[in-house]
Amino acid sequence: MKKFSKKLLPVAVLSMVAFGSLTSGSMSTAEAKMSKKGPEVKNVIFLIGDGMGVSYTSAYRYLKDDPSTKGAERTAFDPYAVGTQMTYPEDPDQSVTDSASAATAMAAGIKTYNNAISVDNDGSEVKTILEAAKEKGKSTGIVATSEITHATPAAYGAHDEYRKNMDAIAEDYFDETIKGNHKIDVMLGGGMTNFVREDRNIANEFTKDGYSYVKDKKQLEKNNNEQVIGLFADGGLPKMIDRPDSTPSLEDMTKQAIDRLKSDKDGFFLMVEGSQIDWAGHDNDIVAAMSEMKDFEKAFQAAIDYAKKDKHTLVVATADHSTGGFSVAANGDYNWNPEPIKAAERTPDFMAAEIANGKAVEATLKKYINQDKLALTPKEIQSVKDAVAHGQTAIDNAIETIFDVRSNTGWTTGGHTGEDVPVYAYGPGRENFIGTIDNTDNAKILYDLLKYKIRIEDK
Amino acid sequence: MKKFSKKLLPVAVLSMVAFGSLTSGSMSTAEAKMSKKGPEVKNVIFLIGDGMGVSYTSAYRYLKDDPSTKGAERTAFDPYAVGTQMTYPEDPDQSVTDSASAATAMAAGIKTYNNAISVDNDGSEVKTILEAAKEKGKSTGIVATSEITHATPAAYGAHDEYRKNMDAIAEDYFDETIKGNHKIDVMLGGGMTNFVREDRNIANEFTKDGYSYVKDKKQLEKNNNEQVIGLFADGGLPKMIDRPDSTPSLEDMTKQAIDRLKSDKDGFFLMVEGSQIDWAGHDNDIVAAMSEMKDFEKAFQAAIDYAKKDKHTLVVATADHSTGGFSVAANGDYNWNPEPIKAAERTPDFMAAEIANGKAVEATLKKYINQDKLALTPKEIQSVKDAVAHGQTAIDNAIETIFDVRSNTGWTTGGHTGEDVPVYAYGPGRENFIGTIDNTDNAKILYDLLKYKIRIEDK
Repeated sequence: MKKFSKKLLPVAVLSMVAFGSLTSGSMSTAEAKMSKKGPEVKNVIFLIGDGMGVSYTSAYRYLKDDPSTKGAERTAFDPYAVGTQMTYPEDPDQSVTDSASAATAMAAGIKTYNNAISVDNDGSEVKTILEAAKEKGKSTGIVATSEITHATPAAYGAHDEYRKNMDAIAEDYFDETIKGNHKIDVMLGGGMTNFVREDRNIANEFTKDGYSYVKDKKQLEKNNNEQVIGLFADGGLPKMIDRPDSTPSLEDMTKQAIDRLKSDKDGFFLMVEGSQIDWAGHDNDIVAAMSEMKDFEKAFQAAIDYAKKDKHTLVVATADHSTGGFSVAANGDYNWNPEPIKAAERTPDFMAAEIANGKAVEATLKKYINQDKLALTPKEIQSVKDAVAHGQTAIDNAIETIFDVRSNTGWTTGGHTGEDVPVYAYGPGRENFIGTIDNTDNAKILYDLLKYKIRIEDK
Repeated sequence: MKKFSKKLLPVAVLSMVAFGSLTSGSMSTAEAKMSKKGPEVKNVIFLIGDGMGVSYTSAYRYLKDDPSTKGAERTAFDPYAVGTQMTYPEDPDQSVTDSASAATAMAAGIKTYNNAISVDNDGSEVKTILEAAKEKGKSTGIVATSEITHATPAAYGAHDEYRKNMDAIAEDYFDETIKGNHKIDVMLGGGMTNFVREDRNIANEFTKDGYSYVKDKKQLEKNNNEQVIGLFADGGLPKMIDRPDSTPSLEDMTKQAIDRLKSDKDGFFLMVEGSQIDWAGHDNDIVAAMSEMKDFEKAFQAAIDYAKKDKHTLVVATADHSTGGFSVAANGDYNWNPEPIKAAERTPDFMAAEIANGKAVEATLKKYINQDKLALTPKEIQSVKDAVAHGQTAIDNAIETIFDVRSNTGWTTGGHTGEDVPVYAYGPGRENFIGTIDNTDNAKILYDLLKYKIRIEDK
């Protein structure tokens, strides 16, 4: 974490093979050798729960618990836990990572500055595992509930000095070709305004090259083109519990992506992001955070289900960092109570928007918060009424506070935090992820497993 | 996590052998079989960093980083990471664990209520792994920086319905015998007032049965009796950075314990607790937390060093829960800065005590906070001066706030939090700890590895 210097690169990765022993740390010889055995890795599904720190995965287990049974019900993730990863960036001014730097580490195997989209600290582009997979003949896909040009998916399929250049990132997806082909076969998520613009209509450009362009769940499900761009919102998709039937879930998109990609005899690489766990964390919104955890869990389960049948698919799920300083309990009380969260049928953001647009406070709250599970007190209702004069954000904060107090949730920041995040893996090669790995190891291990003997620092 | 009922037990553990496959989750057959191969486990060193959640181990890596080198320096723990464990208790009123319930889970393999010292929810005693080891002829030890009668060590060597009965717990250590012998051969830590009392002098009673009784580091080092009780403070030991030369460190005590226990041809079981990481967390004191992390790391390294030579020793290090809702960064800033913490040569508690006893504020602060590393501002000094009128706790809080602000540390509670905690393991059998285990699995895996075919619910 040295302070900025003109030339922080090159990355000291001379042999991918060496990394097998490095990442396996103190494993027994038997463990270390296992990565060489077993079925070959043909397909990779790499899932990223943006902002999904250990407190999120742990809280979600509390939420899934059935109080009528003994013990805690497990999440879909639990059986596949293999360890944790470090997330620190190599940034001149910040020691806690953003999503761009972390995704670059996971996609391209290098530490870089915050805001970087698969460029290193001197601004030069670094090849990503998605690009390498396409080079070697695999099909590729990116799926996200944010704009598909947002930092995390962008770091797999684009290169830019600044994450917020989402129009330029959309252009990269089209303009940067590999052996004459577009590098991403399946793109599903939000961000229509980055593609369908006054200066360019990149969605149409894709259709001219044989892609289908779909805009809602029905269109997506009806379509069976192996190359598709699906843009289901101007920006990010609505949160899972706010989503209309016309919007596909992350599970829907993941299944549709797999269905298309699996026909490639050379295999596929698919990145799936549960983008808005992080957005909920930034907003310190526990209802939205748990909504997005559920969305992400279902997508993960879909990936696992496919991998179990296929037997040549490696599934990895992890996070890029944690968000919000979310703690499972707060204020000296040894309880975290998921039941009030389960009462919410829409996010505080959704309710706040309706109220800000003139809907009555009490009726709106009681419409979207199940009163059998969480009977609002007059004082709670009044706290939201009092917020109306201060605008939508104040209304949102007032509703969030009800859920924080009822669930006993703590937050320390509207930004990210630096603790290690969980790693889950299933399928051939999973043992390489055991222990505490660095975020860059995600790319390095995949390069090794896919037998791409490319030095990470080679552009 | 069912609500309280009269009879929550018996634990559904019919066969220890079955647990091998349960805890290995979705591992490959190769991984699952490994636990049956390799050298036999003769000795177990089980280390518990009380309150050492993922934010603590991650922050400590930030603290150990050398800014002049590329990348983050690893902690002694990092190479041995195998996953995480769940910590939830089975308590009628609390869903977040205390140290007693968690230690009972790790020592005896059962979930119970908070405050329970190796008794189950109906109050009956449950056998601990330390007791089983002694029954099978091994030597045993407990080492802690708290009172050695405090919740965590107590759950290994005593049984009580209430953790605060520390006098009764001290009596258990002496009075409860196994095959006519005292069950713990080496006891090192604090808590003299629980042993040396008006009604009984348990330290003397131990000496009459052949134990040595030592009271400082020199006496401990001079002594070579295989049975020893060392009580180095009335209550808990001073924090590492506050400790006088006469007080042994956790590393000193761990080495001394191993040196005595290793002569038993039947092997040994040793529990080592870094007790005051948790106390620092309760106090929301980042300086003390990092002090105690360092103390614990050195003890862990001593255990690893022994195990590497011995080859038949399994070392496990984990936590019982996290404390304080500590977040590595806060307040929207993407930085966590360890340098100011390194400037502290004593804990805020130590400095506050001196100031409360009449020492000058500015001189005291500048005496114990290295001004080259953290130059205090007039405003910071004034904030402590302003606190003097409000007493020692206010002074302590004011000093802690300086370090929180300078390091950008966040806290949400003076209590515990419910997120999963890290697990590290080295030596034969380590692969059984890979993944996300339940806290009860710690006991169950050890029972299995040591081939103690005892059903956990058998008393």
